[in-house]
Amino acid sequence: MTAIGILGSAGKMGQAIAGVVADLGGTVAGGIDAGGDPHALAAASDVLVDFSTPGALAANLAAARDTGTPILIGTTGLAPSHLALVRDAAAEIAVLQTGNVSLGVTLLAKLVQEAAERLGPEWDIEILEMHHRHKVDAPSGTALLLGEAAAAGRGTTLAEAKVADRAGLTGARSEGTIGMASMRGGSVAGDHLVVFASEGERVEIGHRAENRAIFARGAVTAALWLAGKPAGSYSMAEVLGV
Amino acid sequence: MTAIGILGSAGKMGQAIAGVVADLGGTVAGGIDAGGDPHALAAASDVLVDFSTPGALAANLAAARDTGTPILIGTTGLAPSHLALVRDAAAEIAVLQTGNVSLGVTLLAKLVQEAAERLGPEWDIEILEMHHRHKVDAPSGTALLLGEAAAAGRGTTLAEAKVADRAGLTGARSEGTIGMASMRGGSVAGDHLVVFASEGERVEIGHRAENRAIFARGAVTAALWLAGKPAGSYSMAEVLGV
Amino acid sequence: MTAIGILGSAGKMGQAIAGVVADLGGTVAGGIDAGGDPHALAAASDVLVDFSTPGALAANLAAARDTGTPILIGTTGLAPSHLALVRDAAAEIAVLQTGNVSLGVTLLAKLVQEAAERLGPEWDIEILEMHHRHKVDAPSGTALLLGEAAAAGRGTTLAEAKVADRAGLTGARSEGTIGMASMRGGSVAGDHLVVFASEGERVEIGHRAENRAIFARGAVTAALWLAGKPAGSYSMAEVLGV
Amino acid sequence: MTAIGILGSAGKMGQAIAGVVADLGGTVAGGIDAGGDPHALAAASDVLVDFSTPGALAANLAAARDTGTPILIGTTGLAPSHLALVRDAAAEIAVLQTGNVSLGVTLLAKLVQEAAERLGPEWDIEILEMHHRHKVDAPSGTALLLGEAAAAGRGTTLAEAKVADRAGLTGARSEGTIGMASMRGGSVAGDHLVVFASEGERVEIGHRAENRAIFARGAVTAALWLAGKPAGSYSMAEVLGV
Repeated sequence: MTAIGILGSAGKMGQAIAGVVADLGGTVAGGIDAGGDPHALAAASDVLVDFSTPGALAANLAAARDTGTPILIGTTGLAPSHLALVRDAAAEIAVLQTGNVSLGVTLLAKLVQEAAERLGPEWDIEILEMHHRHKVDAPSGTALLLGEAAAAGRGTTLAEAKVADRAGLTGARSEGTIGMASMRGGSVAGDHLVVFASEGERVEIGHRAENRAIFARGAVTAALWLAGKPAGSYSMAEVLGV
Repeated sequence: MTAIGILGSAGKMGQAIAGVVADLGGTVAGGIDAGGDPHALAAASDVLVDFSTPGALAANLAAARDTGTPILIGTTGLAPSHLALVRDAAAEIAVLQTGNVSLGVTLLAKLVQEAAERLGPEWDIEILEMHHRHKVDAPSGTALLLGEAAAAGRGTTLAEAKVADRAGLTGARSEGTIGMASMRGGSVAGDHLVVFASEGERVEIGHRAENRAIFARGAVTAALWLAGKPAGSYSMAEVLGV
Repeated sequence: MTAIGILGSAGKMGQAIAGVVADLGGTVAGGIDAGGDPHALAAASDVLVDFSTPGALAANLAAARDTGTPILIGTTGLAPSHLALVRDAAAEIAVLQTGNVSLGVTLLAKLVQEAAERLGPEWDIEILEMHHRHKVDAPSGTALLLGEAAAAGRGTTLAEAKVADRAGLTGARSEGTIGMASMRGGSVAGDHLVVFASEGERVEIGHRAENRAIFARGAVTAALWLAGKPAGSYSMAEVLGV
Repeated sequence: MTAIGILGSAGKMGQAIAGVVADLGGTVAGGIDAGGDPHALAAASDVLVDFSTPGALAANLAAARDTGTPILIGTTGLAPSHLALVRDAAAEIAVLQTGNVSLGVTLLAKLVQEAAERLGPEWDIEILEMHHRHKVDAPSGTALLLGEAAAAGRGTTLAEAKVADRAGLTGARSEGTIGMASMRGGSVAGDHLVVFASEGERVEIGHRAENRAIFARGAVTAALWLAGKPAGSYSMAEVLGV
């Protein structure tokens, strides 16, 4: 059985990961937080998952390199200097760094890009997301990721195409824009819908998360896939085979 | 058979109304536009429907009063002075003035108000609408009408409760607010959804219009109901029996 | 604080109820299962909730009557003889017996009945539900409850109006029928949608449960409402104020 | 401008096609029905569209071959002998035969197949469709087409995997099955939704047709694409570029 070492084991994701490892056929090698020894953990693990802090990344990567242990990095808030460290590490060990560990969302992004590419510019693209009442920003990171996928399919960027605030006298819709709308309420873990609307028909591609455990499941699935891989930089899309 | 006279018969709604009258068991008494004689039309009609212009309202109401003909007024853009004329007329004839002639939307507003009233403040209210790419303002008039219904159910007004632009660092949702989101694309005639979201569950109340003919059907249904009614001010809710 | 006594405390619902009582401002007086003493529990409780077994009902009601303690009964599989016991008890104490403890669903049923009543027979009624892959029967009990509400609004019964298997050469839809469709998959806690479809427009009324904790929350909310009420038979609709 | 000849010009689709050709940048070369001369029409056309009857197919194909005119065949109810004629013709001229001329549905089928392939067997597949009250069979042809696409993605056939009647004591869902559910009501032109449901999350891929004109638009778009193509058998997927 593949042994998973958890960097940031006391955090929300760390705890959630520990809770689903056995379910998915792995075992927990151990876990550490600030002050713990990443080398000892790496040595005891077939693969590491890192959901700690940007400040811990350098030491975590060093431990993974020293022991030749593949590592999945889900820590958010990474700066360009952190990403450079990740690239360096990929020359020696298997590394998967991602801001989204849901397999469903990974597939969605792929489908959205393909639909945007195949459906001509007369198909308007709109993205809707709904999250719980405690979320403090909008649109969600996943909505932005889907928007980037749609923009890539159209040969542009979300920064170019995005229209995020439709209120008041907006005028008619401009061709080529990507609209984004956000709803907040209750305890919704995360619903996303991408709508392609043309004359007389709509194609809709969506994702519903029932709870946040799916992110832990996605991280563990990816980690199990990553264990034993040769050095290199991997993506969630590869885990899914797309 | 009830004979319906159409004021503004060359406009989009006037033409659509003429197209569905027979379907719903009525007959067209005739129609006029700018320059036509409303007295002759009123005399030949059991009920009038007015989808002309605010400028024509005074003459249209005078013709209806002179002949004692009930009148449904769906003209938009009425000023307070026009509404005063409408109120005066209701002392002598049956009048139904409304900005929304869909029976489905009329019911929806009733259901939304009731849900807002019954579900406590821990149920967050969000309103979503989608319309075709040519629409120049947001949120839609119907979304605002539904928002007013929700606000009334909560003992407040939409002006107090509305949050219409969720983008950027919004902070957590404030209790008691009513969120509004708009999507634009393709040829969507009008979709509306009111979401009540609480801890672990959502109630969703929505309306989908496949085309604009439903507004003509609603106007004709209301006109047939209005024919023969005594003087007074009536509403779409009464047509529906709610 | 209101003290809630749990009959059937080791069952799924019993445990879930214990988990949310504090959240909703109550306190747990205690709990028993087969072999426990309902009299002692009733004496220590302001209100009882019973999610045990039909076989335990007689003793539970006797304990509630002896101590004058209001009781909510959510036990399923009750026979007519059990319902007769419930009616007898309501002469002496406050009793609320129901097969559905979700406040959202209670409201939904009310809205559906009203919509069915107001929208004429040219609005076809269809009910859709989706549940997790482990569910062994279809349609769901909640879908049947919503179907009964729709049928009541139309002055008929679900037994008369139901069409539950649309496959093959069905012929055109018969006016007045209520269609029911079921989907199964994943871990869906329970989604329900009632569609009213007419020429050119649809009204849709739905409910989404994110998890089964909402049923525990509904039971506790109802129990807190029931505590202190005079003898009589109460319903979830009264808890909601509809 | 590409000149389109319409075989079956008096039928519903023939008329709808004539109505949208100019919109999409083509011109109508002419049209015939039973008794008309397909040779003269083929000679005057850059491309033919055939929405006539199976009985007319042989003569229509002969005319297309004699004049070297590409032909799109949307006629339904073709027998194996008709399909053999189509294959023969494709050796000499460009032929596109299909039971579905919607570009949106064509894309959907592609996305569904890909999702079914990428998402493992723990993602249950369910297909829902809603159509107007006059439809006499269920599930719809498009739902079956989407089911075949899903089955192909899973390496099986719909005949093997389909479960079309969920009512009563069904038992738990069997892994690998594809559930199909149908709703009927109002004037719905055709809504389809494919749901992939796993532990804690769902991916949903859907299509909404507002009216039947989209089929005419799809047919004309495909015909314009087919004009000038060399001999061979083409598909709607190729029109879309997938």
